[in-house]
Amino acid sequence: MTARKPILLNGFKQATVGHTAIGLWRHPDSQAHRYNQLDYWLDTARTLEEGGFSGLFIADVLGVLDVYQGRIDATLRAGIQTPSIDPLVLVSAMAAVTSRLGFAITLSTSYEQPYLLARRLASLDHLTGGRIGWNIVTSALDSAARNLGRDRQHSHADRYQIAEEYMEVVYKLWEGSWEDDAVGRDVGGNLFADPAKVHAIGHKGANFSVPSAFLVEPSPQRTPVLFQAGSSEAGRGFAAAHAEGVFLVSPDTGSLRETIEDVRDRAAGRGRGADAIRFFPLATVIVAETDAAAQAQLDDYRCYIDAEAVIARHSAIIQHDLSTADLDRPLARVDTDGIRGVIEETTRGPIETRPTLRQFAETIGITGGGLIVAGSAKTVADALEGWIEESGADGFNIPGVMPCRTFPDFTRLLTPELQRRGRLMAIGGPAHSGNNSLAPARHAFPPNIQRRFGAENHRCEKSG
Amino acid sequence: MTARKPILLNGFKQATVGHTAIGLWRHPDSQAHRYNQLDYWLDTARTLEEGGFSGLFIADVLGVLDVYQGRIDATLRAGIQTPSIDPLVLVSAMAAVTSRLGFAITLSTSYEQPYLLARRLASLDHLTGGRIGWNIVTSALDSAARNLGRDRQHSHADRYQIAEEYMEVVYKLWEGSWEDDAVGRDVGGNLFADPAKVHAIGHKGANFSVPSAFLVEPSPQRTPVLFQAGSSEAGRGFAAAHAEGVFLVSPDTGSLRETIEDVRDRAAGRGRGADAIRFFPLATVIVAETDAAAQAQLDDYRCYIDAEAVIARHSAIIQHDLSTADLDRPLARVDTDGIRGVIEETTRGPIETRPTLRQFAETIGITGGGLIVAGSAKTVADALEGWIEESGADGFNIPGVMPCRTFPDFTRLLTPELQRRGRLMAIGGPAHSGNNSLAPARHAFPPNIQRRFGAENHRCEKSG
Repeated sequence: MTARKPILLNGFKQATVGHTAIGLWRHPDSQAHRYNQLDYWLDTARTLEEGGFSGLFIADVLGVLDVYQGRIDATLRAGIQTPSIDPLVLVSAMAAVTSRLGFAITLSTSYEQPYLLARRLASLDHLTGGRIGWNIVTSALDSAARNLGRDRQHSHADRYQIAEEYMEVVYKLWEGSWEDDAVGRDVGGNLFADPAKVHAIGHKGANFSVPSAFLVEPSPQRTPVLFQAGSSEAGRGFAAAHAEGVFLVSPDTGSLRETIEDVRDRAAGRGRGADAIRFFPLATVIVAETDAAAQAQLDDYRCYIDAEAVIARHSAIIQHDLSTADLDRPLARVDTDGIRGVIEETTRGPIETRPTLRQFAETIGITGGGLIVAGSAKTVADALEGWIEESGADGFNIPGVMPCRTFPDFTRLLTPELQRRGRLMAIGGPAHSGNNSLAPARHAFPPNIQRRFGAENHRCEKSG
Repeated sequence: MTARKPILLNGFKQATVGHTAIGLWRHPDSQAHRYNQLDYWLDTARTLEEGGFSGLFIADVLGVLDVYQGRIDATLRAGIQTPSIDPLVLVSAMAAVTSRLGFAITLSTSYEQPYLLARRLASLDHLTGGRIGWNIVTSALDSAARNLGRDRQHSHADRYQIAEEYMEVVYKLWEGSWEDDAVGRDVGGNLFADPAKVHAIGHKGANFSVPSAFLVEPSPQRTPVLFQAGSSEAGRGFAAAHAEGVFLVSPDTGSLRETIEDVRDRAAGRGRGADAIRFFPLATVIVAETDAAAQAQLDDYRCYIDAEAVIARHSAIIQHDLSTADLDRPLARVDTDGIRGVIEETTRGPIETRPTLRQFAETIGITGGGLIVAGSAKTVADALEGWIEESGADGFNIPGVMPCRTFPDFTRLLTPELQRRGRLMAIGGPAHSGNNSLAPARHAFPPNIQRRFGAENHRCEKSG
């Protein structure tokens, strides 16, 4: 059998009731309300590991979704983001019941001091044995800003400018403060750690001042695997500079390919290797014993979509109230985010024949704006292989549409088919030889950051 | 058998190498370097639960200890605070392997927005089934302030004034935002949560503006069990107003009684019940098969004390560099903190016959400044009963002097003796009927805060 490019799988969740599939909490089989229970997450982690997933990506936002109608009612009714719990505190329990699964946690560069955030991620990197990833977000909700010490959020450009300095600080802490052999546990010399090998980072910038040494000794990965999901101009530049994994959303493999090639080109322009970044488009997967059974399941799910709640969520994402928009006017453009074009449509009117806002809501109420396939294992595997071929992606970000069903079905039916096709690493195989199966690229391509912010650069400054 | 007052037990740890017993990492049996491993914490939690402990209290500080000699060298050599990891991320894993043990986590009111901190603790309260406590600190290190966005920390008085408003915000979020029956999961009415029962808190104060509703639905306890450890004038006032558990440090039961009675009086002056606060003095316990064996173990431990590192840690606690102090000059006074008097001593000279700074360091290098007993189960149980009698305390805060030995010895030898004396609740007994064995008082005495910040006060303001 010739070697085939493996398909990397991320499970995609948010610790809330309504995530990508909105309104399905009303389905009689729904377990979505158990998002706040430990067993729910332990089961999810075990299932994903058994299914050969590389990791679990947990989305998060830090504010209520209050743009639609200027209030949170529609989102509360469907449990979208509110209520939700903090993904950071979920990880150690899931790590305790798995041995290879990675965890990509969403944390914002806008509301937490880098000295604290770097410590929290490094702490988890220790506890998970090097299985932690960070989905870097700058946050995009005014409601978060208003509750977190500001009148409104910084501008998009300012957020990315602050995020650049933020990354500089955390790289210095993770890569530049402690030398590899700083913790020698030298009993005779009475040196648990050698002060000559622990360095104050002496950071002083426009936004952050961090003079001291890092509080955490080097963790297995030092820097967690870095993920990013923004597809704006600034977001792509940021991804090209920092990301090792990029999450994408588009229902169209052509636009995915365009984005992927653009970010790869930008990364190459910064001297990064062709495989430095892995791309994970959002792909909703409904797999059952037969095509007909899977299609029936999808049709059943569609009955529960709450279109108004979808539009309420969408209003928050684009920070524009769609409650007065005409639902039956066709969309002008849905760009590669799957979302941005909606504003233009609803403010400028129809240009050509496209789905209406209502139809758009009913579609993204299941897909979250990404790809979708429902079928037997063969049908789904064919689709995934085709999408990889067409888009140039490295794998998929797979949402848990129906909690406690979607991932178990995937693992039971689809995992064996993908293994048979040589598309999933055999569990325990070479791709899992490192600590973090989220980071297959890191073995071959040392992160950018280790070159830029290695200990050599910071040996001069001493003490805290 | 007549009912005796139970002795409440807290295990006391910090996620670092050198905590209360400084220098013992050099002992051949030491496992202290495993503070960054998940198994170490899972074993600790299981042992404490088996031993009838109510909870595990994890201390934390947010900066390097750089006061002694103006650098961190002495603390790095003994692994004091640096390196350390974040206690917050440890909890869910320990909760997954226990069913009753509570977790009191140290988080500061000085460096994290209350909207985020309230969410993190409420998230853990959900995941642990109501077993979370919060050790409220205002932080006392300039080094933390310097790395977290300030030139130096706020004054002691300002920190407590900010903490007061901080508590008001988190009470509103925990107690006042969501009504008990807000999450009705009413499928027919398409209401996962009822917007009419979720209230924006509308907080606007001198330090914090938090207009919106809380992101988290009501957790089992809503407000975590509140702990506090400061014994300054401001600290006692804060404890009297807010604390349900107080951690104390003194080698002397007389001074413990004085502090306990003072804080109880202050609490009564605020209309709180006589049992509203439980007091936990620090007590180092070395238990072995015989008195001689326990004494030999303690003598062995003493050989490993690193007196310079103790003084380095102490310099940070009092924010005064003791590196030039005369080690052989007697102390003038060691107050009920076990620490504050040192400054007066080293700056004013001896007044009467007291231990020298060196002797003081060699003592607190094992005890952390608190009580100590080494002996057979009978000897130790006698001492604990006597201390409860003499001080009026409710239990003890027991440090894990020698990790992976101290708590297992306690559980194996002392727990049965305390149970025989009716001093420990039978596991699964009435004191454990609530969710949180850290909070036996809460069943009888509804927290102060529920009266002050209940939902009734905030029903008027709607939406976020």
